[in-house]
Amino acid sequence: MSSTMRALVLADGRLAYHSDHPQPEPGPGEALVRVTRAGICATDLEMQRGYHPFTGVLGHEFTGVVARAPEPGWEGRRVAGEINIGCGECDECRAHGPAHCARRSALGIRGRDGVFAEYVALPLANLHAVPDNVSDDAAVFVEPLAAACSLLERAQIRPSIRVALLGAGRLGLLCAQVLALTGCDLTVVGRHTPGLELLRGWGIAGRDARREPLDDLARACDVVVDCTGSPDGFAQALDWLRPRGTLLLKSTYHGLPQADLSRVVVDELTIAGSRCGPFEPALRLLASGQVRVEEMIAARYPLEEGVAALERAGESGVLKVVLDI
Amino acid sequence: MSSTMRALVLADGRLAYHSDHPQPEPGPGEALVRVTRAGICATDLEMQRGYHPFTGVLGHEFTGVVARAPEPGWEGRRVAGEINIGCGECDECRAHGPAHCARRSALGIRGRDGVFAEYVALPLANLHAVPDNVSDDAAVFVEPLAAACSLLERAQIRPSIRVALLGAGRLGLLCAQVLALTGCDLTVVGRHTPGLELLRGWGIAGRDARREPLDDLARACDVVVDCTGSPDGFAQALDWLRPRGTLLLKSTYHGLPQADLSRVVVDELTIAGSRCGPFEPALRLLASGQVRVEEMIAARYPLEEGVAALERAGESGVLKVVLDI
Repeated sequence: MSSTMRALVLADGRLAYHSDHPQPEPGPGEALVRVTRAGICATDLEMQRGYHPFTGVLGHEFTGVVARAPEPGWEGRRVAGEINIGCGECDECRAHGPAHCARRSALGIRGRDGVFAEYVALPLANLHAVPDNVSDDAAVFVEPLAAACSLLERAQIRPSIRVALLGAGRLGLLCAQVLALTGCDLTVVGRHTPGLELLRGWGIAGRDARREPLDDLARACDVVVDCTGSPDGFAQALDWLRPRGTLLLKSTYHGLPQADLSRVVVDELTIAGSRCGPFEPALRLLASGQVRVEEMIAARYPLEEGVAALERAGESGVLKVVLDI
Repeated sequence: MSSTMRALVLADGRLAYHSDHPQPEPGPGEALVRVTRAGICATDLEMQRGYHPFTGVLGHEFTGVVARAPEPGWEGRRVAGEINIGCGECDECRAHGPAHCARRSALGIRGRDGVFAEYVALPLANLHAVPDNVSDDAAVFVEPLAAACSLLERAQIRPSIRVALLGAGRLGLLCAQVLALTGCDLTVVGRHTPGLELLRGWGIAGRDARREPLDDLARACDVVVDCTGSPDGFAQALDWLRPRGTLLLKSTYHGLPQADLSRVVVDELTIAGSRCGPFEPALRLLASGQVRVEEMIAARYPLEEGVAALERAGESGVLKVVLDI
């Protein structure tokens, strides 16, 4: 007889709170983690809206405590967890890890129950111990902060270059902080007041796209990062690049942007997509206080009110919504 | 009283042969080159069709003999010439040369008379001596071959990777030969018989897009090069990339391709545009016989019949058309 747990389950495009969902059964090499806190991100909202088909427990940003592990030393440790689980056998897995394995599952996204629940099962290899001076609230940001760090893996952001970032939302604010660490000449362009206010507090130049002139950005930036996920954002980002510049795409797009790719050839531009990132650098940046995340929390809800929490997270201008599990 | 010359002149979208066009007057630091042979490329045809506004002598692929030079040692030398002329003063010129100078002119393309004429004026800095063992016919290919070489500047084409090239036309055949030099696993996909036949003779795998299956290319290529300039080509090229793959765009596009850029993010793809390339490597590849170009000549016309020559070059499946000046 298996135990049950509380969980937020997506099925047939409907999200519902269950008080008696079956607890996950860890497979070989997997640990059972008691989730303590989880974060809601755009991908969760997109899945709820049906952009990616998924059935099961939603959620992939979390921190928790290891309840059971196949190796000694892990039980009772506070952890964050990488979300991709590969087959471990294909060329891709062996050469580069699980992120692009064709048979991969991904926590709460693809073929595997996620973290909006009391327990989650994950391979030990996916777990990272959270340093003592990183709070549970901060640890919830490790996954998206790792995704932001991947920008620096995809392009060399040098101190002397001009960089523009489109989007001052949940992901944009993390990307902005990571980019600012390089000392580059960074301008963040956003539409939502709470994000622009946080940027001001952090000493990062932010502009309100609805009110402030942006003409000086045209063909002036070495690197532009698009965190909007909108076709308009893509077109604007392209316009801001100088010749030989690089456009980093950080969000998936709905609908197909019509892109003037002639400019990509004539001006020899580079467009590079970036998805998941490395956890250890993200943990280091949180432990050292170089990236500030707790002030990005806009609201917190108990798991039981998860449906309302996702509704709130989907409202315009709302930053991170956290679930207390 | 200035001298006149024979020339093919584009004005108000009409190309016409003139027997009494004014000879160009070389500016400071410029040489006067007597053009001996010139090549017609897709850009010439596009300008004739009105895709880029231009008035003046058309043409930018050529070889010739220096008639007058501001420095000793140049007169009488056989040369090829780079096509971009920058202001020489802006940051872009000083850091990277003239290719992306905002005030640049380009031979027969932008603000400067081209080479479908008896004489052309060009800065000495743009000229490259043609080695004795490179024929006039071969030297006409230096400019597009340099553009093909730029692929290897934009991405690392390693011997162990799988590469697909879309397009077996004038530019595609040069790109195919340059890519093949790396030892990579190259497949060229084209629609025109003459190009596919040349590839066969060169020992490069070519497939007829209309007749042969292409399923094995799906998500299988590390690098895809698009030489088609068509929105369909772009979409197909994207489909052939494996995760973390690179799409190199070699032709400008008319119309805006609708691109599923979500794949660029999810699979962390890179799209990079490439335009002009380095002349010296192209000359070395011609001098050593590592790239074969003379068999790509489909027809030759005297300058007087230049209008008919461009018509011929615009026919489907016709490779390089050469003008004898």
